[in-house]
Amino acid sequence: MTLRDDRRYMALALSLGRRGQGRTWPNPAVGCVLVKQGRIVGRGWTQPGGRPHAETMALAQAGAEAAGATAYVSLEPCAHTGQTPPCAEALIRARVARVVAALEDSDPRVSGQGFAMLRAAGIVVDTGLRAQEAGFDHEGFFLRTEQGRPFVTLKLASSFDGRIATGSGQSKWITGPEARRYVHAMRARHDAVMVGAGTARADNPSLTVRDLGIDDQPARVVVSRHLDLPLMSALARTARDVPLYLCHGTGADSDRLRAWAEVGARLLPCSALGTQLDPHDVLQQLGQVGLTRVFCEGGSALAASLLAHDLVDELVGFHAGLAIGAEGLPSIGALGIGLLDEAPRFALVEARALGPDILHRWRRPQDCPAR
Amino acid sequence: MTLRDDRRYMALALSLGRRGQGRTWPNPAVGCVLVKQGRIVGRGWTQPGGRPHAETMALAQAGAEAAGATAYVSLEPCAHTGQTPPCAEALIRARVARVVAALEDSDPRVSGQGFAMLRAAGIVVDTGLRAQEAGFDHEGFFLRTEQGRPFVTLKLASSFDGRIATGSGQSKWITGPEARRYVHAMRARHDAVMVGAGTARADNPSLTVRDLGIDDQPARVVVSRHLDLPLMSALARTARDVPLYLCHGTGADSDRLRAWAEVGARLLPCSALGTQLDPHDVLQQLGQVGLTRVFCEGGSALAASLLAHDLVDELVGFHAGLAIGAEGLPSIGALGIGLLDEAPRFALVEARALGPDILHRWRRPQDCPAR
Repeated sequence: MTLRDDRRYMALALSLGRRGQGRTWPNPAVGCVLVKQGRIVGRGWTQPGGRPHAETMALAQAGAEAAGATAYVSLEPCAHTGQTPPCAEALIRARVARVVAALEDSDPRVSGQGFAMLRAAGIVVDTGLRAQEAGFDHEGFFLRTEQGRPFVTLKLASSFDGRIATGSGQSKWITGPEARRYVHAMRARHDAVMVGAGTARADNPSLTVRDLGIDDQPARVVVSRHLDLPLMSALARTARDVPLYLCHGTGADSDRLRAWAEVGARLLPCSALGTQLDPHDVLQQLGQVGLTRVFCEGGSALAASLLAHDLVDELVGFHAGLAIGAEGLPSIGALGIGLLDEAPRFALVEARALGPDILHRWRRPQDCPAR
Repeated sequence: MTLRDDRRYMALALSLGRRGQGRTWPNPAVGCVLVKQGRIVGRGWTQPGGRPHAETMALAQAGAEAAGATAYVSLEPCAHTGQTPPCAEALIRARVARVVAALEDSDPRVSGQGFAMLRAAGIVVDTGLRAQEAGFDHEGFFLRTEQGRPFVTLKLASSFDGRIATGSGQSKWITGPEARRYVHAMRARHDAVMVGAGTARADNPSLTVRDLGIDDQPARVVVSRHLDLPLMSALARTARDVPLYLCHGTGADSDRLRAWAEVGARLLPCSALGTQLDPHDVLQQLGQVGLTRVFCEGGSALAASLLAHDLVDELVGFHAGLAIGAEGLPSIGALGIGLLDEAPRFALVEARALGPDILHRWRRPQDCPAR
């Protein structure tokens, strides 16, 4: 097996792993490819809900062919017995000859122990192949394991001049159908879709993935200190069908708390910071319930709060060729910035046309490979 | 000569013509290629100041080789005797066999008469090759001829959220050196660089092209109803070196008018519309002095005024990966828009990364070829 083959099979394992993104939380979305004598004998990825694991799926597909094969996995195989026996054990039992893993798992129950188990059983273990790509894919899982919070993608769709609605509040539609479809595909690859209270009130959104034929909807999160959200709303109506988390302040009205609990919402009390909820604590609470990837769609106050606290891991922008002018609603609220040096800066990942609009993606400079 | 050859030589003529952009006003920036038996025997483009014309340059280069050659010109050869004899006559005298022109000239002194002169002399004339590209290149010349106003490019460089400065007014630098250099190259391809009074006061700009080694600077235009601009400024200091036009209201203070005239500025009284200068009249005045292509760099009030009156022919955006927040200065001022249907919409021409920033160019939908 050449390095080029190794890289190719690992790329496949990564792309299989991505199929699970948004559906495997709190587990990582892993991909696995089993290759024997230049032939792929098994492919697997973490299944919705986080189980079975990728290795289990690939081994089941390979059957007896797994013996002597090389397993490409996008993350270190697990070594602990949870609700299923450890994957490292399964690979040993199947008598694979070699395991190539992109990354070591940062979960303290695994961290290096999966590799150690495999090596102790005489299996060749190679690690670090396509590690950066795997790091991107598993970033939410790592952030939750290491910092207790999910990965945050902030999406802002605005006019050319950064407005998300006219002064009178009209926002449908600034961007075109291609951008809106792309947003639904992005929602589907996150564990939850999050908005602030203002957006929930103004747009009456359902925050679900539509027209993409997916079975597993991401959870919904609304951040509302006072829980002043209408109970006659799409979110309330669907709270029993698709998980709805409400991050609220400890002083929120008890009648409202009760009413939302009754419609099926899951209440997450969060601490306040000044006049708003502490975004650090909001994300910690979301990490506690198991979310690893959160897709925030604004509005401007929540976007500003996340940006001001350096809690945006990826920034996704859509700009339409439309001028709304200074009376329009800004995409990002007040940040309290006086000097440009204080402004949060991001490094460009991608910029391109998307239908009539432009799409651009940005990461923290330090998270971004040099272009 | 095949159609493919014709298209190739016309592309060359167009690209030669573009070399003159920004330097030939009030004349169009034309390119000309003379081809004989598959060999280029002459190349020319309109010279700075608008003369000699492209055909004259190319014929001079070809000398006796012009006889029997095909002339590719990006615009109909002129037919009237101005400060130089007409180009159609020169082509006839040089005994070219065929003339291929991209477009008919809309100047009433030429319009079709150049072609008629050539045909009367027995020269084969073909027109309409790469007409759309030529139309883009000569759009400023046509607009001035037909509507009396120059072509307007509006450039806005802002943060991700459409801010051109922090709340305290800091704007250096939001975009990176690549974008700034690109702006200088765009300035050089326009006849004039225009800003509003607020930008002139805040930034003390010289509005010249720097670091590109060009000899002919574009003119500068400041739009200031009350002419309340500092005389201790880069613009005043350089007004005798590079033309400076000041578009002001008829009620501007006479002492200020005199002082600016004394430093060498050229004063253009314009009519008012409500509390600001009428942007239609501002552009008519600029057309009167001969400008065909104006590059507007803001600020937000002038940008809003041009957009609100549908006077922006091309919109060029730079967005940096920087969040300034709602206290920042907006790129576009108040437009008085209530419904999205009223917002000026543009069609995307190009979107790409430019250094750490993104660049995007837009045109009016009707001016834009389907993508």
